Amino acid sequence: MAELDLPSILEFTIALARKAGDLILAGSEAIQNVEASNVNEKKNSVDLVTEYDVRVEELVSKELSNKYPTFQFIGEESYSAGHRPPLTDEPTFCVDPIDGTTNFVHGFPYVCISLGLIVNKRPVLGVIYNPFLNHLYTGIKGRGSFLTKANGQPLKLPLTASPKPLPSLSQALIAVEWGSDRAEKPISAKSSSFGRLAGDPAHIPGGKMAHSLRSVGSAALNFALVAQGGLDLYWEVGCWPWDVCAGIVIAEEAGGVVTGSHEVFTATKSDPSFGDVTEDILKGRKYIVVRAIGPSEGETAQGAQKRVIEEFYSSVEDIEPN
Amino acid sequence: MAELDLPSILEFTIALARKAGDLILAGSEAIQNVEASNVNEKKNSVDLVTEYDVRVEELVSKELSNKYPTFQFIGEESYSAGHRPPLTDEPTFCVDPIDGTTNFVHGFPYVCISLGLIVNKRPVLGVIYNPFLNHLYTGIKGRGSFLTKANGQPLKLPLTASPKPLPSLSQALIAVEWGSDRAEKPISAKSSSFGRLAGDPAHIPGGKMAHSLRSVGSAALNFALVAQGGLDLYWEVGCWPWDVCAGIVIAEEAGGVVTGSHEVFTATKSDPSFGDVTEDILKGRKYIVVRAIGPSEGETAQGAQKRVIEEFYSSVEDIEPN
Repeated sequence: MAELDLPSILEFTIALARKAGDLILAGSEAIQNVEASNVNEKKNSVDLVTEYDVRVEELVSKELSNKYPTFQFIGEESYSAGHRPPLTDEPTFCVDPIDGTTNFVHGFPYVCISLGLIVNKRPVLGVIYNPFLNHLYTGIKGRGSFLTKANGQPLKLPLTASPKPLPSLSQALIAVEWGSDRAEKPISAKSSSFGRLAGDPAHIPGGKMAHSLRSVGSAALNFALVAQGGLDLYWEVGCWPWDVCAGIVIAEEAGGVVTGSHEVFTATKSDPSFGDVTEDILKGRKYIVVRAIGPSEGETAQGAQKRVIEEFYSSVEDIEPN
Repeated sequence: MAELDLPSILEFTIALARKAGDLILAGSEAIQNVEASNVNEKKNSVDLVTEYDVRVEELVSKELSNKYPTFQFIGEESYSAGHRPPLTDEPTFCVDPIDGTTNFVHGFPYVCISLGLIVNKRPVLGVIYNPFLNHLYTGIKGRGSFLTKANGQPLKLPLTASPKPLPSLSQALIAVEWGSDRAEKPISAKSSSFGRLAGDPAHIPGGKMAHSLRSVGSAALNFALVAQGGLDLYWEVGCWPWDVCAGIVIAEEAGGVVTGSHEVFTATKSDPSFGDVTEDILKGRKYIVVRAIGPSEGETAQGAQKRVIEEFYSSVEDIEPN
């Protein structure tokens, strides 16, 4: 296979993301107003949500397959009915047309299209576009990642000239999400884990007293916020490769590190390959991403990230995605 | 006292908020970069945070007192050392120069100046400006509230043409915050309350299975997001009048309702004056705000809001602010 022209693919996918963004905005507005105008008809907006989800998905898959007919495609559609095709070495788009569906329905402004490209089983290109805030995040493996606000110049990520330190979780701003699995086990595990992250160790056993916890409701945008340095880390269980694929490239290119579950971390933390997002991690549905950290004396940059992950995973319970 | 020219005060405070916003942005950038550049000197950024907090506070109080020398002023400064001056009937600015301090320190883009005006002991004007997103929220009692994005036209709030329904909490997007009091009692109460809000009632006693919970870390911006309709309700314990004063006007003018604690709600829900934010509520440090709701058959708009508050307060534990 000839070398891919990633900058040209980036240009195409950015234009496509902006087009999809317009449709997402129009859809959210339509849904809000249909909800508002149908109070007495008891007609709900579920049909319209599905309609726009399908329209954005069709727009994106049609344009991508027209332009790149030989590329593979994975997304919610291709995983239907329990089928989980293995990755090939071929270029494979990995796309979530609307990430943050609950926000989309409510008009809460953290919604995006997340558009990733996988080559040789590794994420190599990512575009995340939030049309509500007009924030565009982009990254190409080996070429850095950027935030473009409105029509401004692309800003190199992280937004600081050099990475900020992070001596412990007590100084961290951490993204967590309540997710869609509301059964007893995950909710109890999250409640108590989040309480420990927030809690004062003088009063709560295992308390980390993090600066605080944030929940914006979009996995892709949490990765992007970690990449820019506005969040220190993000932990997630239960989302899918298309929710994180673009974010992985953008975070990695900003100096961030991504790995999987407690178990994956423990098994790989001493490997030279630590930080390589393998097919198993990409499809593992458990993710942790930590921003670039200015290391403390005597540690490496990646050593600092491992220290933070270690401290984090000692504080939260492992959860099985449903 | 002559009638106040509120539109002229609004114009002045908007210009002031934008000026403060520039300083907030500069401060956040300076703090991020000082943190990043001082990794090995162990110098932290606390001094710089205090410096910018004071600079923004001084800018705002100086400009307000020059322009409106007879007006009173309440804010963190005036409440220092346990002194809690009672409200007078005089015009009183109620200002938080930087709301979302933790976000400010981290560069997480939910930070604002919150600038309210109280007359005859009631909030009558509010300006909330987030310089990171360039979102400006404004409201004058009796004249509506608006969101202005970047340099666009002011958009009337809520953003839908008419209010959306909200049949139950199971369809709600709810803002909650972990706050700064990390002792055992508030953290345990929040962990279990949030878990009930998220939890499936089939598995978790009292579960409400809300659409989801969001935490962005700014009380003023949570009020603003409720006003625009992107959040259905926001519950807070422990913040101060200056965190909520501007937001109260903006939310009320968008059809939202604001009240206080469980106890205040129970005592006042049948009063004709329900929804009047009295001095006790404004200073009570316990707040709930619900957006405008398109009522179900047989209920009034305010009846729908009371129903939602009733359901909410039956799900969460009361907490005493420290």
